[in-house]
Formats: sequence, C-alpha cells, structure tokens
Amino acid sequence: MALNDTNMQIQSHRKLKLGMVGGGVTAFIGGVHRIASRIDDRYELVAGALDNDPERGKAFAVAIGIAPDRAYDNYEDMIKAEASREDKPDVIAIVTPNFLHYPVAKAALEAGFHVICEKPMTTSLDDAKVLAETVKKTGKTLFLTHTYTGYPMVRQAREMVANGAIGELRRVQVEYAQDWLAAPDEDPEAASANWRNDPKKAGQGGAIGDIGTHSYNLAAFVAGVEPTEILAELTALVPGRQVDDDASILLRYANGAKGSIWASQVVAGNGNNLSLRIYGSTGGLEWWQEKPEELWYTPLGEPRRLLRRNGVENTPAAVAGSRIPAAHPEGYLEAFANIYRDAADAIEANEAAVLVPNADDGVSGLAFVEASLESSAKGGVWVSLKEKK
Amino acid sequence: MALNDTNMQIQSHRKLKLGMVGGGVTAFIGGVHRIASRIDDRYELVAGALDNDPERGKAFAVAIGIAPDRAYDNYEDMIKAEASREDKPDVIAIVTPNFLHYPVAKAALEAGFHVICEKPMTTSLDDAKVLAETVKKTGKTLFLTHTYTGYPMVRQAREMVANGAIGELRRVQVEYAQDWLAAPDEDPEAASANWRNDPKKAGQGGAIGDIGTHSYNLAAFVAGVEPTEILAELTALVPGRQVDDDASILLRYANGAKGSIWASQVVAGNGNNLSLRIYGSTGGLEWWQEKPEELWYTPLGEPRRLLRRNGVENTPAAVAGSRIPAAHPEGYLEAFANIYRDAADAIEANEAAVLVPNADDGVSGLAFVEASLESSAKGGVWVSLKEKK
Amino acid sequence: MALNDTNMQIQSHRKLKLGMVGGGVTAFIGGVHRIASRIDDRYELVAGALDNDPERGKAFAVAIGIAPDRAYDNYEDMIKAEASREDKPDVIAIVTPNFLHYPVAKAALEAGFHVICEKPMTTSLDDAKVLAETVKKTGKTLFLTHTYTGYPMVRQAREMVANGAIGELRRVQVEYAQDWLAAPDEDPEAASANWRNDPKKAGQGGAIGDIGTHSYNLAAFVAGVEPTEILAELTALVPGRQVDDDASILLRYANGAKGSIWASQVVAGNGNNLSLRIYGSTGGLEWWQEKPEELWYTPLGEPRRLLRRNGVENTPAAVAGSRIPAAHPEGYLEAFANIYRDAADAIEANEAAVLVPNADDGVSGLAFVEASLESSAKGGVWVSLKEKK
Amino acid sequence: MALNDTNMQIQSHRKLKLGMVGGGVTAFIGGVHRIASRIDDRYELVAGALDNDPERGKAFAVAIGIAPDRAYDNYEDMIKAEASREDKPDVIAIVTPNFLHYPVAKAALEAGFHVICEKPMTTSLDDAKVLAETVKKTGKTLFLTHTYTGYPMVRQAREMVANGAIGELRRVQVEYAQDWLAAPDEDPEAASANWRNDPKKAGQGGAIGDIGTHSYNLAAFVAGVEPTEILAELTALVPGRQVDDDASILLRYANGAKGSIWASQVVAGNGNNLSLRIYGSTGGLEWWQEKPEELWYTPLGEPRRLLRRNGVENTPAAVAGSRIPAAHPEGYLEAFANIYRDAADAIEANEAAVLVPNADDGVSGLAFVEASLESSAKGGVWVSLKEKK
Repeated sequence: MALNDTNMQIQSHRKLKLGMVGGGVTAFIGGVHRIASRIDDRYELVAGALDNDPERGKAFAVAIGIAPDRAYDNYEDMIKAEASREDKPDVIAIVTPNFLHYPVAKAALEAGFHVICEKPMTTSLDDAKVLAETVKKTGKTLFLTHTYTGYPMVRQAREMVANGAIGELRRVQVEYAQDWLAAPDEDPEAASANWRNDPKKAGQGGAIGDIGTHSYNLAAFVAGVEPTEILAELTALVPGRQVDDDASILLRYANGAKGSIWASQVVAGNGNNLSLRIYGSTGGLEWWQEKPEELWYTPLGEPRRLLRRNGVENTPAAVAGSRIPAAHPEGYLEAFANIYRDAADAIEANEAAVLVPNADDGVSGLAFVEASLESSAKGGVWVSLKEKK
Repeated sequence: MALNDTNMQIQSHRKLKLGMVGGGVTAFIGGVHRIASRIDDRYELVAGALDNDPERGKAFAVAIGIAPDRAYDNYEDMIKAEASREDKPDVIAIVTPNFLHYPVAKAALEAGFHVICEKPMTTSLDDAKVLAETVKKTGKTLFLTHTYTGYPMVRQAREMVANGAIGELRRVQVEYAQDWLAAPDEDPEAASANWRNDPKKAGQGGAIGDIGTHSYNLAAFVAGVEPTEILAELTALVPGRQVDDDASILLRYANGAKGSIWASQVVAGNGNNLSLRIYGSTGGLEWWQEKPEELWYTPLGEPRRLLRRNGVENTPAAVAGSRIPAAHPEGYLEAFANIYRDAADAIEANEAAVLVPNADDGVSGLAFVEASLESSAKGGVWVSLKEKK
Repeated sequence: MALNDTNMQIQSHRKLKLGMVGGGVTAFIGGVHRIASRIDDRYELVAGALDNDPERGKAFAVAIGIAPDRAYDNYEDMIKAEASREDKPDVIAIVTPNFLHYPVAKAALEAGFHVICEKPMTTSLDDAKVLAETVKKTGKTLFLTHTYTGYPMVRQAREMVANGAIGELRRVQVEYAQDWLAAPDEDPEAASANWRNDPKKAGQGGAIGDIGTHSYNLAAFVAGVEPTEILAELTALVPGRQVDDDASILLRYANGAKGSIWASQVVAGNGNNLSLRIYGSTGGLEWWQEKPEELWYTPLGEPRRLLRRNGVENTPAAVAGSRIPAAHPEGYLEAFANIYRDAADAIEANEAAVLVPNADDGVSGLAFVEASLESSAKGGVWVSLKEKK
Repeated sequence: MALNDTNMQIQSHRKLKLGMVGGGVTAFIGGVHRIASRIDDRYELVAGALDNDPERGKAFAVAIGIAPDRAYDNYEDMIKAEASREDKPDVIAIVTPNFLHYPVAKAALEAGFHVICEKPMTTSLDDAKVLAETVKKTGKTLFLTHTYTGYPMVRQAREMVANGAIGELRRVQVEYAQDWLAAPDEDPEAASANWRNDPKKAGQGGAIGDIGTHSYNLAAFVAGVEPTEILAELTALVPGRQVDDDASILLRYANGAKGSIWASQVVAGNGNNLSLRIYGSTGGLEWWQEKPEELWYTPLGEPRRLLRRNGVENTPAAVAGSRIPAAHPEGYLEAFANIYRDAADAIEANEAAVLVPNADDGVSGLAFVEASLESSAKGGVWVSLKEKK
C-alpha cells in the first residue's frame, strides 16, 4: 500500500504490479520509466524481459530487484508465463525500439494486461489501427507516454484553452529543436542514436517519428483539436542519413486556424528545445520545455503574466500534477511520474485517464507521420489527415 | 561639418542635405527617420512634403525647422522645385504609405537625388524591377530601410556566417510575431493601422508585405544567400480582414538547406518579436530583436556563448555599428541610425553601402511577396523564386 | 537489491532500511524525503514516528506502507524498539520542526543509527557542538540535507572553483528571496508557516535560521572556504512578527575577499529565489535555483558561457549527479535524491560522503546563526566567526 | 525651432544653445551627451572647451561643427567670453573628470548659465553644499545626469511606488556590477580607466563615487525617500589599487525598511549590470538596466506581470519618456535624451524638472559617499546620513 504524498488526507492505494519489456542496462528510457514508477510509490516492478541480449537482460533484471524466475529471455516468454500467474502484473511497460512496440503491445493486451507504451505507438498507421481495435476488444488500456503532456503547466494550458482563456483558436506553433544528431552518423558519439536512424527499427520516419509525434501530440493535447490537413517538408540535412532529421509541417484546422511544427535534431545549440505557443482571438499561451515550470499567459490587451507551477492562478490539473511548492523546480521525471500516477489511478478506478494519451492518440500520431511522409514524398503537397483515420 | 562620435580620431564630414516625403505629424516612421538622421549629426533636414493634408504638412514642416519656402504641398512640387536649387538635397527620404514609394522614388532618382526608402520598396514586382533599372540608369543609390540589418549583432551574425562560423548552411528560422492587429479592424484602437489593411495603399499583401519582407530580407542578409523556392500559406485570421495578417512560408535553398518564415500580426502577447536562428554543419547563431544586444553562438559541441554588442569576440561590422560600450543598451533608433550613417558614408565616398539593403534587395523582397501570394492563391504550392527575378 | 539507473554497468546495491521521525500527513518536507529516497531505489522505509498526533501518525505510517508494529507513537519508543531488532534501520531521517532535530539526532546516533537530518541541525550552537561530538564518539554519520548542494550544477561550481576556474576568490553574493511570509501572520494562508515563526519551535532566528543557513552553507560549499567575520542586520519587516523575516549579512574572508548574503521571506514576487554568484581574479560563476540546470561561467575577458547539466564542459560531480540527458530538466527532487544516493553510497562503502554536508557543517551553520543574532542584537557590529567554533 | 517627434500635436520649440566643457575626442561620455542633445532636436552646440589639450580640443570642436571663435582653450576663457555674447548658451554641459565638476559648475552658474553636470556632482560634500547654495543664489538650475533616471520604466517604477503600488516600503535592493576594472591597473586595456583610479581626479571614492552614487540616486529616485543611516564596506579587491573597486552598503530607512547596495567593478561576466528591486507590504517591482524596456510588477498574491515601455499599464511618465512603440527597443541614449529633453522643457518653461536629479540630489550623493568612506574607515559602523546634510 502506498500513499500519494501530495495529498494531505490519508489515502492508501494498492501497489500495482509492473512488468517491463525493454529498458536494459544500455537504454536511457527504461531507467526513466522505472524512476517515474517509483516517485509516487504506486508500482512494484515484478517481471521483465529487458534486453535483446537475454543473459545481460536477466542479469540486469536481477540487479534491479526482479526475482530471477521472473527475468525472461524475451517478451513472448514473459507474457506467456506471467499471464498465468496469480500475482501477475497489472500493467506491462514497453520501452523497446519502435518496431517492437506493436507486437509487444498487442500480445500484452490480448493476454489481459494494461500497457504503458513508448511513442510512437507503432511504426505504421495500419498497426496503430489494429492496436486501437485490440484495446477496444480487450477492454484494457494503452497509456502512451507522450511525456510532455505530464507537465503541470502543459495540463494547465490545456485546461485554460478548454475554458476559453484564449478565445477562438487562431494559431499553433510547436517547435522541437535538438542537436544531438547534428554530427554525421559515423561519429562514434552518435552511436547510441543508431536504431533511430535505421528505418527497420525506427520506422520510416526519423525526426518526424521521434520528436514530430511528440510535437503533434502536444499541439493536439493543448489545443483540444487536431488539424484536418497538413503539408510536410522532411529532409535529411546531415549528408548520408537514411531518414529525415529535420521536418517542417504546416497545419490547417477546420475553423480556419493555422499552425506550424518544426522538428529538427541537427541544429547546434539546441538541447531538448520543445515549445508550444498557442494563440486565439482573446489571448495567448506560451510554454518552453526547458523552463517547464513557467507558462506565459497574455490576455489580449493586458501585460504578459508569468504563471508558475503550483502558484497563483493554477488550474486544478496543474495543482494535482504538482508535488512540491512553486519555485522548487519539478522536471521531466515528475512529468513522467504524473503519467504513471494517472495510469495507476485509472487502473485502480477502472476509469479512463483523461490526461494521458491513449491508443486513439497513437493512431493520430501515426496518421500524422504517414501523412507527413506522403506529403513530403509527393514534393510537398497538402494531405488530408481526416482521410487517414 | 559633423563628427562621428564613436571615432577617437578627429574626422569631419560635410553635413548632407535631406528632403523628406511623408512623415507628417500623425506618422510614426517619419519621426524615426528624423531621429536616426540626427543621431550622428550627418544630415540636415532642408525640405519636405510631409503630409497628404498639405496645410497640416506645411505647418508641421515649419514646426520642425524646415524653411517655409521649402515646405511643399506634395512630392511632385518638391522634387521639381528642389531639383533646380543650388543647395538642393543630397538625398530624399520616402516615408509614405507603401503605394507611394514607387512613384516618389522614381521621380526622385530621375531628378538626380539619392533615395532612402521605406520597405516594401514598391507594391508590385514589376515596379520594383523598374526602380532597380532606374537606379542603374541614374547612377543614384536607393537605400532600403530594412531597419533590422542596422543592428550591430545582426551585422555580426552576417559576418560570422560569411567567415564560416556555422559551416555549411542547414536551416534558417525567422519569426516575426506581433499582436497590434489582433483586434478586429473596426476596433478604434486599430485605426492607425488602417492603410496597412487597405490593399490599395499597402499592396496586395498584408503581413507578408509589412513584416514578411523584413523577415525575408533579414534571412538573406545574414545567410548571404536567398532561397530558390518557397511555399506560402497566407491567412486573414481576423474575421473580415481584406489582407493576410498571418503568413507561414517554407524555404528551399540551392544547397539543400531548408528554412521557414512565420510572420503574424495577430498573436496576443507578441510586441515586435522578430527573431533569426540560423544553423549550419558546425554551429548555430540566434538573435532576438527585442534583446538586440545579444547574439547567441554555439559552435557544435561547445557551450552556448552569449556575445554582446561591443564586447569580446565582436566582428568589425559590430564594432563599427556601436556607439557606446557593451551593456549600455543601444536599440532600434541606433540600428536605424546605422543605416543613415552608412548611407552618408556611401554618398560621401561615392561607393556602395555594403551593409545597407538596396534596390536589388527591394526586387528580392517583392519577388518574395509575389511568389508568396501566388503560392497561397494556388492553394499552397512550391513556387520558384528564381524565375520571378 | 537495487540498481543505479544512471550507470550503464550492471551494479547492484543492498537496499538500505530507513526509519523516519516527523513527516506526517500535514508536513511538506517529509514527502520530499520519501520521494528522494525512492528515486534511485536505494532505500526501503520500514519504521516511523511521523506525527505529534500519535494516532494520525500511525494511521499515516500504515497508509504509506510501514508495518503496523513499526509505526510508533513517538521517537523515543521508535528508537528504543528498533535498536534491538535484527532488521533495524540503517539510517533515521529526521524531518521534524527544528527544536526536535537535536534530541532525536542525539538519541538516534547514540542508539547506533546513521542520521539524515533536516537543517538547521539544531536550535543552538551548543547543541550543534554536542551533536558533532556525538558523531565522532559513535562513529556514525549525520547527513545534513542542505538540499541545494545536491544540484549537479552547484556541485560543478564547487569543483570548478576548487580547480581554479575563477582564480583567487574576490566576491561571494548569495541571495535567498521568498514571499510566502509576506502577509501578516494572522493571515490564514500563512498558517502552515506557524512553527517557523515561533521561537520555541524554530529557534531564535527566523529567516536567518530557515533560509540564511541554506545560503551560508551554499556559499561555503561552493567557495570551499568560510568567512572569518560577519556583520548582520536582522529585521522583522512584517509588523508584529516575533522573529526576523529579512536578513542582510556582510562577509569578510581571510584572504581579503568580501561577500554578502541577503535572505528574505517577505518580498513580493519571489518564490524560492536562491542564487549564488562567485567571482575571483580570473572568472565568475553564477547560478539560480529556479533555473537549476544552468551555470553561467565567464572567464575574465571571454564571452559568458552557458553550461548545462549533463552537457559539455561538465565536471565529474555534475555528471555523476545527473540521471537524464541535458535539457530534460531535473529539479529539486533529484537534487534531494542525490543527497540520499550519496548517503547510501557512503553508508554502503563506510566512507565519508564528500559532497553531502555533515555535522561539522551543521556546527558552522549554527555558528553563523548565533553570530548573526549577536551582531544584530549589538546594533550591527562585526563578529568573529572563528571564535564561535 | 524643433518639434517633439513623439507628439502628434504640432508643437514647436526654441532650440536651446549649448556649451560644453570636457568631452574631447578621447572621452566616451562627451559623445553620449552630444547624441542625447540631438535626439529630440532641442539643442544646438555652439561653444566648447573640450579638452585639457587645447589644440586638440579646438580642432575637435571645429570638426564637430562649433564655430572656430567659440572653441576655447579652457573653461575659464569660455565662460568669460560667452557670458558677454548676445547669442550665449542657455546651458553649459560639464563632462570633465570628476574634480572639475565643481569649479566649472560654480563658475557657469555664477555667470548666469544653467548647467547640465555629470555625476558625482563634486568630489567633496562641502563643495556639493556650496554648489547647491550657488544654485539657490543664482536662480539657475543644475541638472545632474544620473542617466538611469531617464529610463521610462524607471520613471514608471517611481510613479507606481508613489501611487501606492507596492504599499509601505519594506526593502530596497540595488546592485551595480561591472567587470571593466577587473584586471590590474597596469593592464594596458584598463588605461582608459586611469583617472577614475586616481584619487586626485576622481575624488576619494572609487566604485563608491563612480557607480555607488548612481545606485544610491536610483534607489532614492524610485523609493521617493532616502535612508537615514548607512553602513559601508569598501574594498580594493584588485591588488595595488588606490581606491575602492567594490562596495557593500547596508541601508536603514526611517520607517524601519531596510536596503542594500552592492557596487563592484571587478566581477567577471558583468557588463553594466545595474538593477533595482523594491518591495513593499503589498507588492514588488524589479528592473534591470541591461533589459531596460521591462519592469516586473508583482502585486502580492498575483502572478508576476511584465510591463513594457509604451505598452499597457504604463504611467504618464513612462509614456512621455517613450519615442517609439513598445518592443522596438529604446536604450541608454534615449534615457539620456530624456534628461536633455526634460531639461529643455524646464528651461523653456522656467520650471523645475521634477524627473531630473538636481543639485540637492548631488548633495545627497556626496553625503552618501562621505558617509560610506567614514563608515568604512571606522571599520564598518553605522553612520547617520541625516547629520551629513
């Protein structure tokens, strides 16, 4: 039993059992998931198939506290064995390279597990649709870890837009600029990036799949609406690269609003520079991931206001997503932990997690990727998103 | 005779005589030009046709020190009368609404005056080409006041790019976001904006002409190269507006580099938020107009460096464009004054002003506007810029 | 067994057993300690005396997963009972109001437990000295949770100063500005602050003890040296307050360097605005707690450089204190977790934790508080710090 | 006749005649005064004794447009000769090293000229008092160019404080950090600083006189009240320097409010980093000279608001001090020009310039310097400011 530390009423929770596929000793994102699962003490990691090198995976599983008999060679074994246990996992976290998301998620859902899945949900839109169907059929939930939706000030922005703080939507600007792939691939420092640049493992898209999907999801999460048409210009700016590392996408919304996404992994001086700016007829909101505690709000004709996490003028979702007082910085891991906590709440209550992206959002993400690839392949033409879905 | 105050050697200059068309008591930009002309004491305002209301224009001219007999009803009278004077102006500044730039500039050049002209140079590409021809024919110079090229740190960026500081060009991002036209036009507060929203006076483009041309020019000024193809999405986001107030433009460069311009006048919370970010294979440069004293430079794989006007690691053009020490902020008026000073130097030396945009840049700007209008009118297609020129 | 997720080698650790005194359902800092202890999975919370209301404390203990028979009415019972268990805690965390730190820590150390203690270590210098003696006598360690020393970029600053990056020390500026006590105490919103404004529970100092000690510790941690003399001006700026809520302290160092601390809890618009700026003969370093991922470094005569956690030019301590890549913000909880992790490493290795403040630092903190109170009581005179210790 | 370009009503002004003492070709501040005098076209420079090298001074005077017969060898000659001319100057600007301010200002006032004088007004408090008396006796005005009071957002802060925006004064924090004197004096790059480090020319104080007086004046200008007691710690941090280059001053106000000034010229990474933060019982205001267009305002319990020059929520003085729209940066030269324009308005109207520091402020500045020197010489004791005046 565990307690939500942010709540001043004494509440106790059943600790959920967690299985994990991927996330071996060399992977970055697996550790992030495990920390996120621990922060609020709502999960216990009980089983794992952590690595494509089975011996290394099992050694690592044991080292991080998984019982040896629940450390598996591969996900097939794990799902099969765990499905029949009394003390089986409530949920399986999938933190593998992209091409494995689909088969693992499908198998896990069909075996009766909830799933927490890394993005992009699949490497093809068809797979994504199948997975969404599988969710419906099985009655299980797939929680898609679009991390940035876990930030309290992003959730605040969503609530403010929904509550009319900016009036009618006019313009959405999302940027996601990085430089960690700016050097050519043969650069040994870029080695860890390898699978992302291999279409077989990452899917056809490069930046468009890796960070373009985050950008698209963030825009939709806050705006509360998706564009109906897009036009994409995908480029491999680093010579010799097989997939795009830079993507410009224009967006058209049904109400006439316009938008733009720029996602690049090759622009020097940018770390993880994701930002969202959204403007309507009566106001604007601006947020930068590298300063996640701050949300700028300008009602048209008033001064710019700096809203801070857990400070004044916070919406309920922002308060609920906060653990510590304003100006004591929370960050990326806490945003991730909000997704894990919300998933736990949803599983416990057997309800939907309204603030956590799900399989339908995964379908939207893949529709965005495929429309972008199609638009770009045709030389930069407008493509209907609606028809994709 | 006047002295360049920034120079510790005693230098004296002949004070140039300046005539002005437009810039009456109700206009903002006329006052800016006059201040800019005074800052370095290189000009004397001697003649003017300042207003479409002749009486008001003449009263104002006299009030600001122009001799009554050199305060004119209209530009035709002024150019005719002044052309035959012994003490005639060296240069005519044109600060009228857009539709008058062309006829006034043409008349002034043909009458033997140099011209300092507001942007956009004309309201059509054809007119722009005629004006460029006129410049060649007359041997006079047209200085185009793309103000932002006057900022020392913009000039520094240009020099750094030319000197290889970022390697081969990869990506250009320009944004120009404002909110002063965010309210519907019937709003009395938007009254001063009226001519800009009237296609007869401003030209067909709205934001694309007013601030899109600044953005395009800035990108070309710093990159040292223009794109070969563009695709534009122009929108009137404020209901009922006759011209675009928001523009997204994608750019393709000959070497495979890509770029993007976003120009909007309707996004709440943005004042005059112009920025340029330019990235190459070995580094990146970033500049924001609202913090014009700072230029961020990141050589790939090194920390971000904050370069400051007149501080360490300044290039010659940045030093030359500075009047006072680093961290004593210079601003918009000093950037403008740099254009005036460079124009004076060029006129005095009878040489080109390499750092001041000219009639050819004006042609490029109008080619950009027309290509954008064409692209957008066709539903958002790629248009060759080369063929326009 | 647990694994350090940041390390790509498979390492396993014995999970330490943790007891806790204080940190009941109404307390903020107890939850912070529990989250910090979980982030790296190095601790298991096994026993607690969490509340001055015994029933509430026990109910809460059980709710957060402590076995009912190890949920105690008070710390005396807990220490007595746990000391004789086979599976007793390795370490006791003390998160009570200030006046209880001393008796609990003393009892815990004497019963053979390591201690993780909130600051200020005690409410009097005499008590602090006794505690430091107790540490020596028992051979146990007292880890003092001066949170801000856990930030990677603070640790980087310390290493850079030690390595000569700023030359000989000249000037230290620390500020710690808040506004949460800006309203008068009778304000119901300030209720949670009550014990801090009660000299019986908080000690004689108000801001000087609560955040002045953090400031002093941070300065000493990074500078690597403490001042020899100080002069303090302590004020209760809010009418009717019994303890200081604003403190200015001037610092003199043995080498002639000078410094200043300003700590205030009543200045509107400040959240948790702690900053450290430190300058020497050849460079300067600047850090702000609200942007903890950034460290500004200026070698004299070079541009300002922005160093980022886990980015280029990071020192070993900064890298070791990072869990995730640069620009994925870590924050306050991760800084706290670094203290817990370092404590675990130290306990496991039976070595000192060089980057975690200890009982000697606690003595320094109380010497600072008492010297400040003495200086201020005498009307603002210089007081030797050396003689205090 | 000239016109205030910011005003949309046609207004004309008599152009004032300006004489200048100091400000030769090698001086920085002389050029600043001349630009400031030109920006609004309210002055004509007609006479000058610009240099302690008479030939260089006269050559320079002629080069910048002064008639040869009004270019003088020294100030005595100039004042004598100009006083008897029909077309004599309205006002004499004094831009010499500090030790000459007093004799030149006294002679100019007594000869019937208004004076625009650089700070600090004199090098001794006694001289300052004599000068204030001279002002009273002669009925002329001495305008003291504490530049930073000319910034629109500083003037806005003053008006807001006066109008109760922050409630009762609690705390004033002023910092003025530079690094241009951080290298030892023998450094050739520090040559231009020479007179400032020579007590015979600069007065006894170093940083305390040069930038401490600016800091003190700024605090008083905005707070609307001066402290009654101060305590100072003055230090020469650079080995071998004859005057202080770093100063910490604590302030006590009559109402119990407290304050602090830190002025240093030797801290690497700081350009001209002057800031003012002022807090009261109901709000706070914060301003940084290097971002002069922004004023942060936080009403207690509300979000931080970013007020911008010439934007919404501007006070009359801020609007009047603006020439161009918000977000088109004005800077240091425009702040200076505001002082010149206000002086012109005052002279023209024969009224006091309420927003421009005067001889009484000069006396306050010297009282501050002398009290600081006394406090520091006595080892850091509290000194009454009141008794100084």
